[in-house]
Amino acid sequence: MLVFKRELEIGFGDCDPAGIVYYPNYFRFFDTSTAGLFNQALGMKQIAWAKHYNVLGIPMVDTGSRFKKPSRFGDEVTIETRVTACRTSSFDVEHRLFNGGELAVEANETRVWVGAGPEGGIRAVPLPAEVVTALGHKPRD
Amino acid sequence: MLVFKRELEIGFGDCDPAGIVYYPNYFRFFDTSTAGLFNQALGMKQIAWAKHYNVLGIPMVDTGSRFKKPSRFGDEVTIETRVTACRTSSFDVEHRLFNGGELAVEANETRVWVGAGPEGGIRAVPLPAEVVTALGHKPRD
Amino acid sequence: MLVFKRELEIGFGDCDPAGIVYYPNYFRFFDTSTAGLFNQALGMKQIAWAKHYNVLGIPMVDTGSRFKKPSRFGDEVTIETRVTACRTSSFDVEHRLFNGGELAVEANETRVWVGAGPEGGIRAVPLPAEVVTALGHKPRD
Amino acid sequence: MLVFKRELEIGFGDCDPAGIVYYPNYFRFFDTSTAGLFNQALGMKQIAWAKHYNVLGIPMVDTGSRFKKPSRFGDEVTIETRVTACRTSSFDVEHRLFNGGELAVEANETRVWVGAGPEGGIRAVPLPAEVVTALGHKPRD
Repeated sequence: MLVFKRELEIGFGDCDPAGIVYYPNYFRFFDTSTAGLFNQALGMKQIAWAKHYNVLGIPMVDTGSRFKKPSRFGDEVTIETRVTACRTSSFDVEHRLFNGGELAVEANETRVWVGAGPEGGIRAVPLPAEVVTALGHKPRD
Repeated sequence: MLVFKRELEIGFGDCDPAGIVYYPNYFRFFDTSTAGLFNQALGMKQIAWAKHYNVLGIPMVDTGSRFKKPSRFGDEVTIETRVTACRTSSFDVEHRLFNGGELAVEANETRVWVGAGPEGGIRAVPLPAEVVTALGHKPRD
Repeated sequence: MLVFKRELEIGFGDCDPAGIVYYPNYFRFFDTSTAGLFNQALGMKQIAWAKHYNVLGIPMVDTGSRFKKPSRFGDEVTIETRVTACRTSSFDVEHRLFNGGELAVEANETRVWVGAGPEGGIRAVPLPAEVVTALGHKPRD
Repeated sequence: MLVFKRELEIGFGDCDPAGIVYYPNYFRFFDTSTAGLFNQALGMKQIAWAKHYNVLGIPMVDTGSRFKKPSRFGDEVTIETRVTACRTSSFDVEHRLFNGGELAVEANETRVWVGAGPEGGIRAVPLPAEVVTALGHKPRD
């Protein structure tokens, strides 16, 4: 499975009056990591792969996160991101954020590979086999 | 069970290039709603009830959200929030966001009632019976 | 001059580790107030008036803010917003945020009334006389 | 004058429904750059230099920004930051954000070097000569 790893320094504005990361901001961090994973897997930025595969994006349908240890302004954390399951059009992503070597936050996402739908809307379209392979999974027959 | 209901108009800056609410912002909306629920239940603002009960707050340990329908700039949405379970120190919160009468987003939270711990840290402390009652639950014996 | 006034309760997530509003968030507050001023002046929401006047919006070209007194979680503040000058296509906005009756933050904006330009871009278009009048100014001859 | 330069990739969540960076987010970017400039100048992170110099931070009193060209999701921009003037306790910062080699946004800040004041407040304290020197300026006699 492909793992995308990035380092991040916690900013002052990421933190709340308790002096720790305001938890909605973790979802911003993780969204950026999912984009980074796809960019690494597909070898191009989202604007390019969306055009290449004729899709609109990978909207979120379900996400959750468990907060085990707080992080603070100036902490240097590492986020590891991978796709843990691919289905016909939807897939699962897992994030693990480490601070000082310890697992501090973990999160899961379910997203969908979508193209243009009727009346300006969107619709789920099948994940191309080469995308599934690039993410380190085995395409379905 | 006490239900806290509030109306919210989606702002331009809450939305992303897809023209819909950027999902991390829902967690900001829901955090504000949980604060509103407690303020309504306890009849005072958080700074006052934190002092009254000698606690530091109600940090999040686990949250998740399911996104069923998108909301856009200018949409007027309603959020309903309730505590669905109280344990010794932790409790569960449920949010339901409606747009045009339809359930658009739902979310769950597990938070902990915490006081000052050793060395400037925090520790879980038991939820007072009157807080449990005010939230519309039956205190444990 | 038309004045749009709104009340706002400072949220936990609006504040930083110093316990005061993180200043970039004031710009979010003020952007929402400018939208509110136009909605009040024109009697419809932005999506409707943009369509009605065949424009794309009122992007910011220059903004500044002076922070006189901090505001904290739970503070109830009032923001007063007015257009202070209208030119052919651009106009100036002034915001004043009061906390406990005292002027806490003031801000100025210069924005442009824009329509669709060549190649998917935008271009400044003249402010309609009725918009200028609705904002409480005298249209140019 | 010391110049702190950093590169930044614009995230999806930094952008608004017009597909461009939502302007309040530039202030977040610039706040992070000012922190980076001080960390580079003083050779330690803010939590360390605040302790070393017995101060609380460098709160903003006045900031402004001019938006010349928009930036979009995936754009790689460069921010250059420098202190342009030092007074007894206050100082001015200038940011210039470049996109594709062109100046896209410029901003100015006035901040104050503050220590603990009476009753839990803050008060301006003189900038130490070594801080002024480290920022590339000549200390006052």
